[in-house]
Amino acid sequence: MQEKAALKKLEQLGKDVVSEIEEGKNPRFVTAARTRSNIVFDKKEGYLRLGAAKEERNFINVAQAKKFMQTIAIAAKCHKFLEEDLHTSIRGLFYQLKFSLGEDVDESIFSEQAESNPLIEDLEVAINVKREELNLNATRRGVLAGNMKVVDTSGGERIEMDCSKTGRTGWSIPSDVDNEIDFVDIRAKYVLVVEKDAIWQRLNEDKFWKKENCILLTPQGQATRGTRRLIRKLADKKLPVFVFTDSDAWGWYIYWTIKTGSINLAYIGNDVATPEARFIGVTMSDLDKYKFLNKLTIKASEVDLKRAQEMLQYEWIKKHKEWVVELERMIKGKIKLEQDALQGPNLTFVGDYIKEKISKEQYLP
Amino acid sequence: MQEKAALKKLEQLGKDVVSEIEEGKNPRFVTAARTRSNIVFDKKEGYLRLGAAKEERNFINVAQAKKFMQTIAIAAKCHKFLEEDLHTSIRGLFYQLKFSLGEDVDESIFSEQAESNPLIEDLEVAINVKREELNLNATRRGVLAGNMKVVDTSGGERIEMDCSKTGRTGWSIPSDVDNEIDFVDIRAKYVLVVEKDAIWQRLNEDKFWKKENCILLTPQGQATRGTRRLIRKLADKKLPVFVFTDSDAWGWYIYWTIKTGSINLAYIGNDVATPEARFIGVTMSDLDKYKFLNKLTIKASEVDLKRAQEMLQYEWIKKHKEWVVELERMIKGKIKLEQDALQGPNLTFVGDYIKEKISKEQYLP
Repeated sequence: MQEKAALKKLEQLGKDVVSEIEEGKNPRFVTAARTRSNIVFDKKEGYLRLGAAKEERNFINVAQAKKFMQTIAIAAKCHKFLEEDLHTSIRGLFYQLKFSLGEDVDESIFSEQAESNPLIEDLEVAINVKREELNLNATRRGVLAGNMKVVDTSGGERIEMDCSKTGRTGWSIPSDVDNEIDFVDIRAKYVLVVEKDAIWQRLNEDKFWKKENCILLTPQGQATRGTRRLIRKLADKKLPVFVFTDSDAWGWYIYWTIKTGSINLAYIGNDVATPEARFIGVTMSDLDKYKFLNKLTIKASEVDLKRAQEMLQYEWIKKHKEWVVELERMIKGKIKLEQDALQGPNLTFVGDYIKEKISKEQYLP
Repeated sequence: MQEKAALKKLEQLGKDVVSEIEEGKNPRFVTAARTRSNIVFDKKEGYLRLGAAKEERNFINVAQAKKFMQTIAIAAKCHKFLEEDLHTSIRGLFYQLKFSLGEDVDESIFSEQAESNPLIEDLEVAINVKREELNLNATRRGVLAGNMKVVDTSGGERIEMDCSKTGRTGWSIPSDVDNEIDFVDIRAKYVLVVEKDAIWQRLNEDKFWKKENCILLTPQGQATRGTRRLIRKLADKKLPVFVFTDSDAWGWYIYWTIKTGSINLAYIGNDVATPEARFIGVTMSDLDKYKFLNKLTIKASEVDLKRAQEMLQYEWIKKHKEWVVELERMIKGKIKLEQDALQGPNLTFVGDYIKEKISKEQYLP
């Protein structure tokens, strides 16, 4: 259904351009400006999104003609992919474009993939579709397990995957979690997002997701588009989302990206941000509660300290005293703490820690 | 069963040290030297392995006492993990060691994880076990689909996963593919290893593995220990292994690592190398056969050219004229070719290309 909608939008874009040509007008299309100045933090909703500024691309314009042509070429290719009912990666699109613009045109228009990425974003914003709806696969990464089933109908048959029967491996989160896929029989009570795959494996071995009846998910580092989107979809089903990362610059970045979205994806902010997410740790204040952690801290890097300083300047952080305390403590002590450190005395303590944090509602906003 | 064997070997190591102390001897253990000079290419078998050189570690030795103590500490921790029947990552082991050597000892012995990695390898070699048998999880990466089932009994119940029912996602290859896991009902006829996940997704959408009855596997870049080991195990079941990568330095490195193993893992060479593997492409000679590819080459990087020059010096390469021709052509033309380029005219051509290469046996050794 969504694919059909994308097809119609692409066709409308083409029809508009043709009409303008026939009417003797300068063909154009309008897209939201994706410049830094047009990225706003929506205080009410709690995520990064684009502001009201628009940009017009004109065909008869020395500076814009090439980009205009390239964007229309991308639209034509995506239209073809949708008609063929086939997916490819951005790299695949790049080679399709490099090969030719069509039967009559025989020239390479893109020499570097870096040229095509921003144009795809232009198109996504201009016609208000996500690249996944244009049959473009993004990088995928991330795994989950829990009491939930996935129904994938993309291959012409109905494949049902039970995320409680995935053994040591878990279910891999795909690039597209919206089209021809459904998440059903969700009996889990909350979503636990753990930064590192190694910690996911540790908790999975302890059957944490089974005992606690949660969906145990790891983005395996920074969350991809697909993983962020899936977390958003699970939050839409009223599951609380808890995030568990290292107490360092990278861990915080992973948390904030899941929670508020990111500058790069501000143009689809509401689809990939989960402002309801809460941060359960590890935190600097854990050092007071769990004394053994004091011998397991490691030296903060310059990046960590610089990032902590930057975060202290954010309006949003300033409002939340708990985060200010965390950041100042890291800066003062020049130390950081990894989630792996919880395994120091006892491998299974990681799960105990999480259970206590959640049951006592000891989390940061 | 294998875990039991590792437990006994660790206990024997401990008993030997205790005996030596009781007899007033200098406690020691012997491990194979993992220096470059002791890494040999086994011409008969076709993989990298360690030579005969041994290294002795002594406790009463100013230069070796610290390392000796650390290795014994690692052995003790792994023994504990095996007794507890719990797994962790090397990072988890690092924190366990950092926390303490035992109840009576309260000092941090490892300040950096870089110190513990080579010691784990020492232990693996000294008692001839793999880290997976010591309940240490390595990084995992890689996905497959095909007519095969996986039986995972590690969680105390029997979980059966059907690799032909994994929809768009595939089955994630775990760190350990040897213990409490089995691969059954293998009806596929060969294994196709494709470098990039994007190409795997393309072929999976085309149901390539179903139509051709193969196991479609991607290491998602360089193959991990687990993925290399699984490819070896599938080759042991007499399935031919074909590798499909870019025609560039990174692609070749991925191929050679799967085929002959690597310097880093020479100490477990025969377990992770698949000398039977064949290279199906993409190749420089594809430019003659598939004319459209000539407009889809990209500029070779300095790294690619340098690597190609190095490969030309290898004895093994010199013997294989096909590889010499490939490498010289790349160096002369200063171009490389990506597997994604096959999608230029037609997204589904990738599968046609592979089918033709395999049916006509057009592959490199």
